[in-house]
Amino acid sequence: MRALLLDEELHFVEDYPTPSPPPGEALIRVEMAGICNTDLELVQGYMHFRGVPGHEFVGVVEHAPGAEAWEGQRVVGDINAACGVCATCRAGRHTHCPHRTTLGINGRDGALAEYLTLPVANLYAVPEGMPDEVAVFTEPLAAACEILEQVHVRPTDRVIVLGDGKLGLLCAQVLALTGCELTVIGRHAEKLDILARMGVATLHVERGATVKGLPLADVVVEATGHPDGYATSRALVRPRGTLVLKSTYHGALEAALTMAVVDEITLVGSRCGPLPAALRLLERSAVDVTALIEARYPFDAVLTAFAHAGRRGALKVLVDFTPPARPAGAS
Amino acid sequence: MRALLLDEELHFVEDYPTPSPPPGEALIRVEMAGICNTDLELVQGYMHFRGVPGHEFVGVVEHAPGAEAWEGQRVVGDINAACGVCATCRAGRHTHCPHRTTLGINGRDGALAEYLTLPVANLYAVPEGMPDEVAVFTEPLAAACEILEQVHVRPTDRVIVLGDGKLGLLCAQVLALTGCELTVIGRHAEKLDILARMGVATLHVERGATVKGLPLADVVVEATGHPDGYATSRALVRPRGTLVLKSTYHGALEAALTMAVVDEITLVGSRCGPLPAALRLLERSAVDVTALIEARYPFDAVLTAFAHAGRRGALKVLVDFTPPARPAGAS
Repeated sequence: MRALLLDEELHFVEDYPTPSPPPGEALIRVEMAGICNTDLELVQGYMHFRGVPGHEFVGVVEHAPGAEAWEGQRVVGDINAACGVCATCRAGRHTHCPHRTTLGINGRDGALAEYLTLPVANLYAVPEGMPDEVAVFTEPLAAACEILEQVHVRPTDRVIVLGDGKLGLLCAQVLALTGCELTVIGRHAEKLDILARMGVATLHVERGATVKGLPLADVVVEATGHPDGYATSRALVRPRGTLVLKSTYHGALEAALTMAVVDEITLVGSRCGPLPAALRLLERSAVDVTALIEARYPFDAVLTAFAHAGRRGALKVLVDFTPPARPAGAS
Repeated sequence: MRALLLDEELHFVEDYPTPSPPPGEALIRVEMAGICNTDLELVQGYMHFRGVPGHEFVGVVEHAPGAEAWEGQRVVGDINAACGVCATCRAGRHTHCPHRTTLGINGRDGALAEYLTLPVANLYAVPEGMPDEVAVFTEPLAAACEILEQVHVRPTDRVIVLGDGKLGLLCAQVLALTGCELTVIGRHAEKLDILARMGVATLHVERGATVKGLPLADVVVEATGHPDGYATSRALVRPRGTLVLKSTYHGALEAALTMAVVDEITLVGSRCGPLPAALRLLERSAVDVTALIEARYPFDAVLTAFAHAGRRGALKVLVDFTPPARPAGAS
């Protein structure tokens, strides 16, 4: 099959072996995939991943031995393939299973290939009528929902999202649904405008500028994708407030924590979230993900798509596996 | 009056001006004070404090203009003197008032002098019959109670306290009351023995040794007082578990946070706590603080007391203001 392969660098290969689903897993034909900042970080060395990247996808189950009812079903999938039997899994924290593999990130080939495999237990049916270009956002939207799974954000809270990238825009939209007093801070006026049109307050700051004049927030979400986002976001949290850390990247974040003790700040690391909740929000059109689509490429132009996704300020770049191929870059 | 004074270094002075209580405050004659690690850190430059150190005390109200009912009452006191009217105070977070002074730590002379002043609103009556040497632990015990104020520790939780210093021993005793599965890790066999005698599981590790063989904990409390405690304690927290940071010290704690995001760890900075709860625990003899007393010195030997408190592994050193003076070092 055709696949994007990351070894020392990215290659497009025509003859990658089509996977065969092990027991309990399904073979899925990928219809559409999204490129995430994490994919760009993998190329930089994050997680030391080698193989097929890609973890945002929508596809159709081609073969599911022992679970034939899934065959033909359009699905999205939880990217964490857990053992299901260890103490962590039995405690309900399967996304933290110490034996897990993670689709296109750790120990498991991902979605930027014509086929992938995932455990049947990881699959969620996509509602009929939901376009692929919406369903493909299920995984990143679930990561945004994870904030509300971990932190009780009240309708009366003052909340700040730092970062107007793809993740920041999704986090902001989910947080806006709580009714909280929300401000999103970012460096890109055109991206902030997407939120402003939705009625979300935004603050445009230049790179390196200090954020001034904002009252301290009950909850701050750091979604810049950069290590230097920590200090800025930390300074925006009120005493006893909560700082949610959403960014993951290659390279260490070194944070000065002494004053976080004095101010009794709660820091919450936040990663993958609940896919069913994300699907519900998408089905209810509570979140507008199509506003985040910057470009679509056919799969044979995936290297170009990757380069596009790596441009400074780029929003979501989608990769389309279904013929007819659309013109490169047309959205 | 006689006072211990910190400028470039510590001095014992005979002629420090006796304070006069401003409106709303009380003049308190100190009966007994405790020396805390924070006091030792102040000498190292923490908070850049200059003045009379000391914030653990029990004393008697000598003069309380407008609140004469307090006069003659033996009291302990909340060390955070807040404005009472700002948004932070009105939200119930007076210990984080941006205008606050802190007894013997920031902008306010402390308890290692014959007299101190504190707002009447900060005072709590000491129950009759409670010895000074017990009541003087109210403030540090309240700091230990703050953990339970911030984090829901369940009776079924696996909890680790890292550090067997004064704060670690108090935190451990408070946590033990929840019924949780508790292990305290420390470097001093004789201090761990205090807890072992109370039925708390302990693990003695040599300085620099790696902690091995312990299952990951739901909640870990970092109470080592050293920056290097972070990495060790972090490694002991299960995914989605909670790490409570109790240590404050001069100098920056630089923590690698990327893996805390991947593991979705919650970090909670924790400082001063509820004095009434601490007094209730002391009155119920639910916590044994006298086991932590290492030495008592008369106030005129306070410099010797400070040197004693600074010895590696020293437990609580008390300073006694009441005649007759006891022999130095006798407990």
